Amino acid sequence: MDKKNPGRENPWQNARIKPAARRDDNVRKPRESTPLREAPAASRTTSHDTASSVPPQAHRREVETRIYGRNACLAAFAKRPQDVRKVYLIEARLGEFKPVLAWCVKNRLGYRVVENEDLDRLTEAQHHEGVCFEVRRHAPLSVAELARGCPVDEAALLVWLDGVGNPHNVGAILRSAANFGVRGLILPAGSPALSGAALRVAEGGAESVPLAQAQAREDIAETLHEAGFAIAATVPRAGVGLYENKLPPRLALILGAEGEGMSMQLINDADVRLTVPGSGAVESLNVSASAAVLFAEFWRQHSAK
Amino acid sequence: MDKKNPGRENPWQNARIKPAARRDDNVRKPRESTPLREAPAASRTTSHDTASSVPPQAHRREVETRIYGRNACLAAFAKRPQDVRKVYLIEARLGEFKPVLAWCVKNRLGYRVVENEDLDRLTEAQHHEGVCFEVRRHAPLSVAELARGCPVDEAALLVWLDGVGNPHNVGAILRSAANFGVRGLILPAGSPALSGAALRVAEGGAESVPLAQAQAREDIAETLHEAGFAIAATVPRAGVGLYENKLPPRLALILGAEGEGMSMQLINDADVRLTVPGSGAVESLNVSASAAVLFAEFWRQHSAK
Repeated sequence: MDKKNPGRENPWQNARIKPAARRDDNVRKPRESTPLREAPAASRTTSHDTASSVPPQAHRREVETRIYGRNACLAAFAKRPQDVRKVYLIEARLGEFKPVLAWCVKNRLGYRVVENEDLDRLTEAQHHEGVCFEVRRHAPLSVAELARGCPVDEAALLVWLDGVGNPHNVGAILRSAANFGVRGLILPAGSPALSGAALRVAEGGAESVPLAQAQAREDIAETLHEAGFAIAATVPRAGVGLYENKLPPRLALILGAEGEGMSMQLINDADVRLTVPGSGAVESLNVSASAAVLFAEFWRQHSAK
Repeated sequence: MDKKNPGRENPWQNARIKPAARRDDNVRKPRESTPLREAPAASRTTSHDTASSVPPQAHRREVETRIYGRNACLAAFAKRPQDVRKVYLIEARLGEFKPVLAWCVKNRLGYRVVENEDLDRLTEAQHHEGVCFEVRRHAPLSVAELARGCPVDEAALLVWLDGVGNPHNVGAILRSAANFGVRGLILPAGSPALSGAALRVAEGGAESVPLAQAQAREDIAETLHEAGFAIAATVPRAGVGLYENKLPPRLALILGAEGEGMSMQLINDADVRLTVPGSGAVESLNVSASAAVLFAEFWRQHSAK
């Protein structure tokens, strides 16, 4: 099955990566303080626009979004309080969110103490944990910006999430990505923004993992290779075993179901197909378990002290 | 925080394990063919009874249980067809479950083609994937049986699941455990049987991981140490880093929230506190992500070819 590794030689040796250029100062680097859905302040774009074509400011409901869950809200406030627009919470959360309410008062932002049922309705969910924020929503980075923004002399893992629709899996992957210092999450062109459910499950992890979105017709593989990244497509069976070779220090990992169109193209463009090994007792690992194992192994090889 | 490892020496060197005895033929070994909820044929015990005190046969509804989900049902049929009592499925599943229905006809078992709504009601769930089995339910092993049943000359990982109530987490852990060849899952004394939801999420993984349940007042740590197992309690922070030392080849891993009573006792009795490292960007990994990382690392060290 693995066309790329018929013998036992290191399958990465033929990766079509190019030496990563030193960071061009014209390329915007994701800033640590406001990573997720970061965009230039002037470009309140919808998520499908490129960063270079800045449309007029979109409607209010397109640039604000609701997030909920204790840790998701606390992380958003810690990372980017200036993006908080409105706060809804139940009485029992008042103590814990005192600094947030003080900020609201100081900045003349609205906050409302509400009932659980109000939050059920506002969030269209039951697992809101008693708190919901309206926050400013930023357009994602382009893949080129994300890739070139990773310092050349540091190990960096990027994750391309393909066809993973379940918000619990997306959230779990984000949480693990944040835990293991993943440098960015790439969503396919045209995929919807991350849902409130995914952000809640991520427990605040979304605030520290920069988000990029592929553009239609963009050659992602070329973009990643040019920025010095090797590309691995993870497949449930018959790929190169995860523990057989050292992982390259700049790696973009495609996670998810093998899909159609763009994603199949990218899988074919990958340098290596990687498989998390196992006993064979179950068909495969869950995609979020698989993600955690892959992120951890990259961490072990490149980040562990 | 880590009292057990003030210096940098190998924290496992003082583990209070005893040389594992060669398997005593009087001790029942979990058989590969029927691992989950396995018990001697004569002891249809309720889950709180010890294997040595065999009560009279319990009521019918206590010895049969419903499982649902495509992979959970297919795995149960593959592993222990003799335990299938009744089959409910929607028309769309008929083709795939043809061998099961042939078995039913041959063995005079009932099967019924039903509507989705019937399955919603039967399973009290919506994610039944169009199929539900009534299967015979076996009492779990004792911890001593489980531990002593692992061949002395093979690496073996056991998992003690403490205070993990969410069936999605339990199921995800079971699926990863099956993938990485975990030799057994231990539930605390008095915990309920695994739910249908957990078994569905496990995707059949429950059929290949032997299940044990602690007995009230049993000294689990002593039992495990006597069988040659080192014990690690996994903690979110301030334990020994997972990648700092080689893991012992016979290891019992305590996963979950630090709880009360029995479990706190076991955590205190652990030889080492282990922490999956991370960036600190999120408070912790999800317990099932953490489990996958731990199981994978044990596999990498002791099972990977």
